[in-house]
Amino acid sequence: MPSTDTGFYSIIDHTVDGPATQTELVNAFAEVQERWVRFYPGYRSARFHVSTDGTRVYNIVHWETEADYRNFVETSDTEGRMAAIGAALAGLSGTAEPRMTGVPTYTVVREVGRGPQA
Amino acid sequence: MPSTDTGFYSIIDHTVDGPATQTELVNAFAEVQERWVRFYPGYRSARFHVSTDGTRVYNIVHWETEADYRNFVETSDTEGRMAAIGAALAGLSGTAEPRMTGVPTYTVVREVGRGPQA
Repeated sequence: MPSTDTGFYSIIDHTVDGPATQTELVNAFAEVQERWVRFYPGYRSARFHVSTDGTRVYNIVHWETEADYRNFVETSDTEGRMAAIGAALAGLSGTAEPRMTGVPTYTVVREVGRGPQA
Repeated sequence: MPSTDTGFYSIIDHTVDGPATQTELVNAFAEVQERWVRFYPGYRSARFHVSTDGTRVYNIVHWETEADYRNFVETSDTEGRMAAIGAALAGLSGTAEPRMTGVPTYTVVREVGRGPQA
């Protein structure tokens, strides 16, 4: 079925060197969200996904609409936020490498729900 | 705030050569979900995220619990499913390159909700 999701997402994707760095990276990015992002209109959530093998972290930030995201980008202190992210990454005990390519903004174009149970 | 999400996720991540391939890849993977996956206990949804710059596709499959996912892996026809995925990728007009590293299964460890509005 087509998706009825009108949300807008940014997905921040890193490879890391183990579970301890996963935890540090999640905590650092969560603090960035708490201090710099969650106050803006249309912000819904940031959800931190860690891989079970300890090698990867996704931060999926959900906005109500693309316009809300654009408004955030245009009216927020991008320099301050980027500096905070840079400091957070520099403060990690381990290593984290970004895996983003191009512009990390997304829409959900399709959803496949549950079928009849096997 | 800590996440209360007890779900289990697999995240299938590809780079692609443009919007037309995004659409083809989404449709191909959606068909795989519809024919091979959505019937298993604990399956909740597969959601297809396409990047606004046309270069990337994420398929995020949501299971109720890790046990449901493991049951699916152990009891489903993995060979048939992998063959269907291989055929779907081979049938694309454009190119798609996997970006997964390691085991592509995830849990949500933290969520940052809305703050007071700015």
